[in-house]
Amino acid sequence: MEISRIGEFGVIERLAKIVHDPQKMRRSDILVDIGDDCAAWRVGERIQLATTDTMIAGVHFSAQMAWRDVGWRLLAMNVSDIAAMGGSPAYSLVTLCLPRHFQMEAVEEIYRGLEEAGEVYGVTTVGGDIVRSEQVTLTMALIGEAAVGGDGSPLLLTRSAARPGDEVAITGYPGQAAAGLRVLSGLGRGEAEDMDVLVQAHVRPQPRLLTGQMAARLGVLCAIDVSDGLLQDLGHVCRASGVEAVVHAGYIPLSPSLARVFPDEALDLACGGGEDYEIVLAGTHETIDAVRRQSDMPVTVIGEVIAGRSGRVRLLNGQGEDITPGIKGWDHLRLEESGP
Amino acid sequence: MEISRIGEFGVIERLAKIVHDPQKMRRSDILVDIGDDCAAWRVGERIQLATTDTMIAGVHFSAQMAWRDVGWRLLAMNVSDIAAMGGSPAYSLVTLCLPRHFQMEAVEEIYRGLEEAGEVYGVTTVGGDIVRSEQVTLTMALIGEAAVGGDGSPLLLTRSAARPGDEVAITGYPGQAAAGLRVLSGLGRGEAEDMDVLVQAHVRPQPRLLTGQMAARLGVLCAIDVSDGLLQDLGHVCRASGVEAVVHAGYIPLSPSLARVFPDEALDLACGGGEDYEIVLAGTHETIDAVRRQSDMPVTVIGEVIAGRSGRVRLLNGQGEDITPGIKGWDHLRLEESGP
Repeated sequence: MEISRIGEFGVIERLAKIVHDPQKMRRSDILVDIGDDCAAWRVGERIQLATTDTMIAGVHFSAQMAWRDVGWRLLAMNVSDIAAMGGSPAYSLVTLCLPRHFQMEAVEEIYRGLEEAGEVYGVTTVGGDIVRSEQVTLTMALIGEAAVGGDGSPLLLTRSAARPGDEVAITGYPGQAAAGLRVLSGLGRGEAEDMDVLVQAHVRPQPRLLTGQMAARLGVLCAIDVSDGLLQDLGHVCRASGVEAVVHAGYIPLSPSLARVFPDEALDLACGGGEDYEIVLAGTHETIDAVRRQSDMPVTVIGEVIAGRSGRVRLLNGQGEDITPGIKGWDHLRLEESGP
Repeated sequence: MEISRIGEFGVIERLAKIVHDPQKMRRSDILVDIGDDCAAWRVGERIQLATTDTMIAGVHFSAQMAWRDVGWRLLAMNVSDIAAMGGSPAYSLVTLCLPRHFQMEAVEEIYRGLEEAGEVYGVTTVGGDIVRSEQVTLTMALIGEAAVGGDGSPLLLTRSAARPGDEVAITGYPGQAAAGLRVLSGLGRGEAEDMDVLVQAHVRPQPRLLTGQMAARLGVLCAIDVSDGLLQDLGHVCRASGVEAVVHAGYIPLSPSLARVFPDEALDLACGGGEDYEIVLAGTHETIDAVRRQSDMPVTVIGEVIAGRSGRVRLLNGQGEDITPGIKGWDHLRLEESGP
């Protein structure tokens, strides 16, 4: 059967079955593997994290994007996975698949963007690979570390730790990056300053590293980064945790720029647009409240976790009516955005 | 300027300049970075290793290769980089870039090959990424560990540790994988058993993990794995170490199968064919001799390191005449095999 009919998440599920074959050797030092933002394992008393993400020209970024911004984004999207585990990034491996006629100056610009972001987030490029291909394909593997508590237990945020009664919160203002992409495509009307806020969110996303680390230290146990869309990514948390989430549309923080430039689509963009690299947290009222009070970044409670149906996310209006949109987010193997 | 004119190694050199900008933050725990088989860094008292390698359909493997063998090879080529540092592999991240119409059954076969090789070499798949692309592109990042000596110093094999007076040795029989690819393309004539030995070397390469680890423990300091061709890869060692190497053609071990199926090209294939994933070692007579005596795998001295001209590798015949071939190995960005 064609993989586009099975979809990204179905393919991962089938491959995970092969990897998790109970007959097989399995390293005993692994804490988290397939299906979370990062893998995690113990090295002595320390916890290592690793993640990988790929960008393909024409699929994950467009010709309007400067090569330096492409480099920044490649690092930022990987750092975001480390942020969603509550960890610190450290070492990157960069694979460049490039057409023969690609310009050296463009490769150098990609690297300058990578290095700029590396300075900000504390990442050093330590290796990689370069091969010839038809499509420009950029892959990073990023290795980092999670902190441990006083008793040596790992301070990790995972997708599977949401519990009924938890609050659901989000950092920053989701939907700005998706709006920025629309602005770059010539859509939207507004003040230059608003347009620029949205474009910057798209070309220079800021992963929520400090908020993730703070959440892990303050006792939050569950998080995911928003790369495919807020409701869809929250759905991954619900499926991994065996719970349902209820999100109140009126609570979702809409940035003023987003609301002014795309007044009719702001909520849809905030619910379904990925690649802001905001983080969704789920935790007890006390832990979420502690993060909210101590984070420089706005952290907004948008809903709650209930026992309900595993994997379901409902969006409710002010009257408590279900207004869950049909289009939820991005599936990397289907051509269209995926349904519910 | 187009990258194909600069070539893979020229591109890496220019990017390394950006990464190694002395103005930049740099993590102090890094032991080895860009330009060796793996990166290496300290985590507490332990040494972590990481490498990444990519295979693109039509470039790095052909349609004749079974998907399960493609999976095996992807893991084997990355394990080989760990072997060339003297380390042990442990955790892999797998990125699949696949066309929409790719068959799920083929993806599962790739994973079965990965898992088969993982069982043999002690690697667990802990994560990855799946994206849609036009070309089948498979990338692995592999993380492992190096041993430390009694005094806590890292037992690492690097490219930059060859010294004048060192012996140069190779594991196994180089050139068999390149010959196997020719057999798959319909070239060569011989007994079925010989043909099969060559094809197996191509489709199921066996990285020299134990020999690499043994060499590191026995005091050898320098190694590289042969992925692009014996003479070219030895050239990387010579450039990184600032030395010259002399290889005696008559000492290069030719497998009986290779010599029988390709009698006229056996030496060329052994000197220029990559992807056997044999290891070239450089070390003092005593250390190389210790490896030779204790390894199950044949380890053959083929030449020596001299002060000479940095980066040069000369191939000499029985009369001591220079017979260095014009075609040396593989450059991943040029269309042709690269010149000297």
